[in-house]
Amino acid sequence: MKLTNALKSAWSKAAVFTEFGEPSSVLKFRNVKLGPVPNNKVLVKMLVAPINPSDVNQVQGVYPIKKISQKITLSDNSVIDGYIGGNEGVGQVIQVGSDVKSAINGQIKVGDYVIPMSTGSVGTWANSTIADPSSLVVFDSSISSKLSPEQIGSVKVNASTSYRMLRDIVHLDKGDYVVQNGANSSVGQILIQLAKLYGYKTINVIREGPNFESNKQHLLSLGADIVIKDSDLLNKDMMKSIKDTAASENKLIKLGVNCVCGKASVLMAKLLSNGGHFVTYGAMAKQPMSIPAALFIFKNITFKGYWVSSWYSSTNHSQWFDMWNELFDLYANNKLVEQKMVPIPITPFDSANNAPQNLGIGPTEVDPADDLIIQNTFAQNAKKSYFKFY
Amino acid sequence: MKLTNALKSAWSKAAVFTEFGEPSSVLKFRNVKLGPVPNNKVLVKMLVAPINPSDVNQVQGVYPIKKISQKITLSDNSVIDGYIGGNEGVGQVIQVGSDVKSAINGQIKVGDYVIPMSTGSVGTWANSTIADPSSLVVFDSSISSKLSPEQIGSVKVNASTSYRMLRDIVHLDKGDYVVQNGANSSVGQILIQLAKLYGYKTINVIREGPNFESNKQHLLSLGADIVIKDSDLLNKDMMKSIKDTAASENKLIKLGVNCVCGKASVLMAKLLSNGGHFVTYGAMAKQPMSIPAALFIFKNITFKGYWVSSWYSSTNHSQWFDMWNELFDLYANNKLVEQKMVPIPITPFDSANNAPQNLGIGPTEVDPADDLIIQNTFAQNAKKSYFKFY
Repeated sequence: MKLTNALKSAWSKAAVFTEFGEPSSVLKFRNVKLGPVPNNKVLVKMLVAPINPSDVNQVQGVYPIKKISQKITLSDNSVIDGYIGGNEGVGQVIQVGSDVKSAINGQIKVGDYVIPMSTGSVGTWANSTIADPSSLVVFDSSISSKLSPEQIGSVKVNASTSYRMLRDIVHLDKGDYVVQNGANSSVGQILIQLAKLYGYKTINVIREGPNFESNKQHLLSLGADIVIKDSDLLNKDMMKSIKDTAASENKLIKLGVNCVCGKASVLMAKLLSNGGHFVTYGAMAKQPMSIPAALFIFKNITFKGYWVSSWYSSTNHSQWFDMWNELFDLYANNKLVEQKMVPIPITPFDSANNAPQNLGIGPTEVDPADDLIIQNTFAQNAKKSYFKFY
Repeated sequence: MKLTNALKSAWSKAAVFTEFGEPSSVLKFRNVKLGPVPNNKVLVKMLVAPINPSDVNQVQGVYPIKKISQKITLSDNSVIDGYIGGNEGVGQVIQVGSDVKSAINGQIKVGDYVIPMSTGSVGTWANSTIADPSSLVVFDSSISSKLSPEQIGSVKVNASTSYRMLRDIVHLDKGDYVVQNGANSSVGQILIQLAKLYGYKTINVIREGPNFESNKQHLLSLGADIVIKDSDLLNKDMMKSIKDTAASENKLIKLGVNCVCGKASVLMAKLLSNGGHFVTYGAMAKQPMSIPAALFIFKNITFKGYWVSSWYSSTNHSQWFDMWNELFDLYANNKLVEQKMVPIPITPFDSANNAPQNLGIGPTEVDPADDLIIQNTFAQNAKKSYFKFY
């Protein structure tokens, strides 16, 4: 089905930045003129766009993968060089250009759910976007009818990272231990649940702080076997007791999963059994890891990285769906619970007339109410959030 | 053949230490009473015993694998707790106990060349030793007749480490690059030659200093493709030019080989192509490696260790000989040249009567001449040396 009444011009309310810095300072919602939808493109109304640590690092300018600067036309027809934040999310197709043949995985039509796969310049923190269909994966109603937009919109990065790290780093046997830090993150919470489903045990390191006990209880309720504070890594008796427990079960602490780096991560690596693997997918401490040679030579620990974007680049959509369908089934059967994210509801500027034809038409100037939303969303220690456009 | 006239008591001139410290201070040649050869043991006259960096670290007490302390009887029948240095070497069997069945790889007889495989308490820096045949590999005359004791006696650690690191870390294609530091070491020199034979190219990092040019010329003569100073790793233009050269040949810098650690090693790791492997087999700088997360996550570099002892433990003698026979053939056909080691000739105390029956009989007291040998051998920046007992 194609719309006969193509939009003369599409608009988007988008989180734009023109310089690197703290998102609470440099990120502003602007009314962006997308223009008419080209014949070879599709117009997508975003539904859900998560705010991942890597997205924040990208706005700060400290992420190695930079967004490509684009010309952004505002509603007064002024043009600025800038970026639209965000790399993950799900949207719904509202218009398909007349020459469009297919998305990555087949036909694309109005009403389909799509997730953008490119890591290029298009940002997902926008209530609509014009996209190249060759960068979109389409989900038909058999999937979108049984899952929430939040579940579909967060599968690409976090859930898939957890899933793959349990498979692609080292062969795990039932009963083997996985030790991870940042265990309270989205990746961490999914990993705990998947490990439990597959029969692996998890040792989970989280930050000290007033919420330690409640976070610990939450992770235990998801299936965590052991939950410790980061300072516990300095407690030699406790570390020995954890090693002894695994040894008494004749099991290995075979995989370390790290999103922190710095000293505490090296202490965590020392928990691994000889021959273990240690995978780094993040660096929240913004510190390198100072690894003593003995961990390489005598403990024979292999240190690797994991970046799920690189996995997507080297595989095809049938492999993506092998993974996603398994995750979606687990969601649909309530065997897997996504991390509860705080929704940040974003309304079009023209909230009185929220029809697709009028997407986001509104003031060029920054709205003080939106400034407040940005500031609250990106406040330090903000809870895991996502922009909710529906 | 077994000796009918078994020795009443065997003696050994051995490099003994009783406390950890600099070898030039703590290591002394002592006349050690081995006693009668038990029926289940063999008496071995050592021929060649290399002095490896790990042996020196063991005397210093900074090597994670400690020697096991043993009771050492001196010629005045006093008994001390101590260690005999050295872990590598080749010797010749001079007496076989009456109950001895076989060595690791088959029959053992007087005259056979043997190398000790255990990493236990027996030290090779001794002109004779009583050994458990189950810890010895026997080389028959088909091997010992065509090779020097130096070639046989140094195959276990250095040559085998080079050989295995080119095979066991990552698949290399002809034309791929290997970058290594400490390239002037025994391992480094063998690696250059093996890489050349297998069709890989090498980028070799060596220390600055007055001998840089002559060392560089020597490595080039062995087949090195590129030889640079460690400070060149800071030269961005030069690093870019090396990367560009590999790229222009459509080849990858796929393997990094590190025996230094510290900052310079991390700079070397940055030379690797995306997806490269970096293997650490030594830590001469005695510093950890401070690895930024981006090398793991975005450059997808895998960091591992290599310890050839661990390979021997997990394989059997037929696999050892697959490797050694290949190396021995290369030596015998002059396709592979071992690093020239400086021989430190060690004569028995009773040098006038160098018959096996009188091995090492001499003074209990330390000989000032021997003290001088030890001091010169272990002086800082001493050239690669070995004890020569024949």
